[in-house]
Amino acid sequence: MMMDAVTTLESEVGRRQRVDPAALAAACNALQSVLGNRLRSGRSEREQHAHTTTWIESQLPDAVAFAESADEVVAIVRVCREHRVPIVPFGAGTSLEGHVNAPYGGISIDMNGMNRLIDINAEDFDCIVEPGLTRKQLNAGLRGTGLFFPVDPGADASIGGMAATRASGTNAVRYGTMKDNVLSLKAVMSDGCLISSGGRARKTSAGYDLTRLMIGAEGTLGIITELTLKLHGIPEAISAARCVFPTIECACEAVIETIQTGIPVARVELLDALTVQAVNAYSKLDLPVSPMLLTEFHGSVESVEEQSRSCESIMTEHAGSGFTWTLDSEGRNALWQARHDAFWASLRLRPEARGLATDACVPISALASSVETSRKKAEELGFIAPIVGHVGDGNYHVLLLVDTGSAEEVAKAEHYVQWLADHAMSVGGTCTGEHGIGQGKMHCIGEELGEATQVMLAIKRALDPADIMNPGKILAR
Amino acid sequence: MMMDAVTTLESEVGRRQRVDPAALAAACNALQSVLGNRLRSGRSEREQHAHTTTWIESQLPDAVAFAESADEVVAIVRVCREHRVPIVPFGAGTSLEGHVNAPYGGISIDMNGMNRLIDINAEDFDCIVEPGLTRKQLNAGLRGTGLFFPVDPGADASIGGMAATRASGTNAVRYGTMKDNVLSLKAVMSDGCLISSGGRARKTSAGYDLTRLMIGAEGTLGIITELTLKLHGIPEAISAARCVFPTIECACEAVIETIQTGIPVARVELLDALTVQAVNAYSKLDLPVSPMLLTEFHGSVESVEEQSRSCESIMTEHAGSGFTWTLDSEGRNALWQARHDAFWASLRLRPEARGLATDACVPISALASSVETSRKKAEELGFIAPIVGHVGDGNYHVLLLVDTGSAEEVAKAEHYVQWLADHAMSVGGTCTGEHGIGQGKMHCIGEELGEATQVMLAIKRALDPADIMNPGKILAR
Repeated sequence: MMMDAVTTLESEVGRRQRVDPAALAAACNALQSVLGNRLRSGRSEREQHAHTTTWIESQLPDAVAFAESADEVVAIVRVCREHRVPIVPFGAGTSLEGHVNAPYGGISIDMNGMNRLIDINAEDFDCIVEPGLTRKQLNAGLRGTGLFFPVDPGADASIGGMAATRASGTNAVRYGTMKDNVLSLKAVMSDGCLISSGGRARKTSAGYDLTRLMIGAEGTLGIITELTLKLHGIPEAISAARCVFPTIECACEAVIETIQTGIPVARVELLDALTVQAVNAYSKLDLPVSPMLLTEFHGSVESVEEQSRSCESIMTEHAGSGFTWTLDSEGRNALWQARHDAFWASLRLRPEARGLATDACVPISALASSVETSRKKAEELGFIAPIVGHVGDGNYHVLLLVDTGSAEEVAKAEHYVQWLADHAMSVGGTCTGEHGIGQGKMHCIGEELGEATQVMLAIKRALDPADIMNPGKILAR
Repeated sequence: MMMDAVTTLESEVGRRQRVDPAALAAACNALQSVLGNRLRSGRSEREQHAHTTTWIESQLPDAVAFAESADEVVAIVRVCREHRVPIVPFGAGTSLEGHVNAPYGGISIDMNGMNRLIDINAEDFDCIVEPGLTRKQLNAGLRGTGLFFPVDPGADASIGGMAATRASGTNAVRYGTMKDNVLSLKAVMSDGCLISSGGRARKTSAGYDLTRLMIGAEGTLGIITELTLKLHGIPEAISAARCVFPTIECACEAVIETIQTGIPVARVELLDALTVQAVNAYSKLDLPVSPMLLTEFHGSVESVEEQSRSCESIMTEHAGSGFTWTLDSEGRNALWQARHDAFWASLRLRPEARGLATDACVPISALASSVETSRKKAEELGFIAPIVGHVGDGNYHVLLLVDTGSAEEVAKAEHYVQWLADHAMSVGGTCTGEHGIGQGKMHCIGEELGEATQVMLAIKRALDPADIMNPGKILAR
């Protein structure tokens, strides 16, 4: 675990070759006998399994295996292990850092056929799901139970993919991230063993926390085949509020005081003026073009009214104006539409460009200056760069609109990503709050975590000695 | 990761020898030059560092090293690695499963000299501490900030020890366990490298979750030297309530409904009738000898009043009687005294015996029948066995009062521990909710987690190839 090893991470990437054609052919033959026509190698199929909502160039797998059971995943992994063929898990394809790319070729394993909601234990506030189930499918399946699964990254991602990238989203400030909402999981490890990390107990101290080790491992240690999830009661009442501020700093200060006062805010989202402008154009709205906070409160009718009123008085003290709140679900949906449209609306600010969504997360006391500094830096580099933030967690996304046809712009964008990572680190934060490392941030993790990356590499080597599990992500070998 | 390897776990324990005397002498020489008279080998010192609140027999270390800085921990680990001498971390000595025993001898590393509260970031709700700081010292140090650290296992444990055993306690139902309240940590790994698992961001997706890997690893992967903790705002108001029930089942059903209704209860503790009887005798109280729930609510004055009233109506529906609640801190302390005294009061039920605190955690829907079945089984075996439970989490402790001088009783107690583990597993639970595996549950983990223990062993081998970090705990090699 010597420091100089960190610098070999990147250099090692180039050394590995694409999978050997003879080994691949042998593996595909064996897989075909397991999967029949659920092993496919047509170009469009392979393209669909590498292309995602990312600015990173696609790297196609050699074939796509459509798994329908944990047993099939075991069989696929055993074949791939025997022939040393990489395996890249694929869910909804909504990841942002090239997680589903196949830089060394190999097999994309499509998990969408494993999307059963296996069991709901309403009394215990838990359920058991297969990884291909999406969060919207899950919440639809929970209808009538009075329960919901709160993690909401925006996209209708698969639960397995959300676990693999340690996703969170708008209401993590109240309900936590994927690491907080998975009780246990099953996974197929690189040798084809199916392990279970635990049961349905709300807490356990039985050995190493393999649940949390697999969450955020991005498929590099094993393939998740089942998850036991925590559920939450749908609150009796939900109120939503909107408030505009003269500056981002005022908005951030209002959030700090709201949280410090102990108001259990469920969501608190920041949109900068440019994002509001984009949303106005996209959704034909007439919102005041100024930094805006959107908040949501969960509880009894009495308590959400109390929370909304307390929040209003704090926001007004911090120069907030036009505070409006509603208990009505239609009004609430209209209000949140602005936030949900932000990504697509922002892309329209420069239709020929691709969006590079950055993901810094900093201590909340550093948030106002970080957002402002990040905005200025993007402006200096000539980028159109709207900003949104899950400000209760200190997590914000500067969306760089990049013409990927221009080498100069791409170089500037790469410079910005590195600069932002350095900045986040300099204030005690991280280069990624919720998107993961994937391919896009591999050059940042060594600097951020130093020798800890050598511990990660030691774990990777121990659990995947043949380096077949989503190779070329998080850490290079 | 073959299943048969699980059965070798126990058999391997006996194979290892105590540390080689020549190697030990060489290590002690080297350590003395680093620590001077902070390396001690007197018998009483060694006895103090092996004896804890456990029924497991003490196994003394060969010497005790009193560390005062991370640099010293690095130096100690390097010496011990060179000479292959085991290192056993020691905090407050309040663990319950023989975690601080030295079955192969070696060095106990006493962390109490590292008890600084390094930094408080009130705006960010976090602080940085050394591992020897106890939770009461921490909360005393936070006075005046309006913040507190909520994890409360009862004993005044060290924060490092609480992290190492993934401790929780009475208010985990609202605030989570140690895994939820540590943002990041520093640790010295077995090769003497000091790693940092992250910064102060509220969330991160940067690589494998080494923070959670070290939490609950019981010192077997490395020695924690610093922790960044989440803090919480001290609620404006706290109310506490007490209610008695005709049966444990009624009490459990009331808890399930309370939680299902979404009442954000901060603590909810069950005392069985025998525990109440013990507490009455110990503290000269006159509580009704019947299953009892103690609850606590945190929030604004309005909200805790609302929560208390809602809770009262639910408990009354479930045959609860004598519901009393108070906003007054003196009244609250008196009410909780019963719970805090329960362990010591229960030991008085049979003063010549030692207490064996079991630690099953089951899904809450199975709690009522599990507690009742566990009570009957203990009765059948002839044990006096009071029961308390953190019932919001499904975690309950049957305290077996065992005459450790009687081989027959010890055998019965061991049978009970195994039976209880099997029972918890059979309903989807775990043999340990918060005490850890240590030595006392090593025979349970293989059965509970199957091949997952082989993944744990692979990680242990990769990160501690010489097996010097608290060997003979969790997993045998």
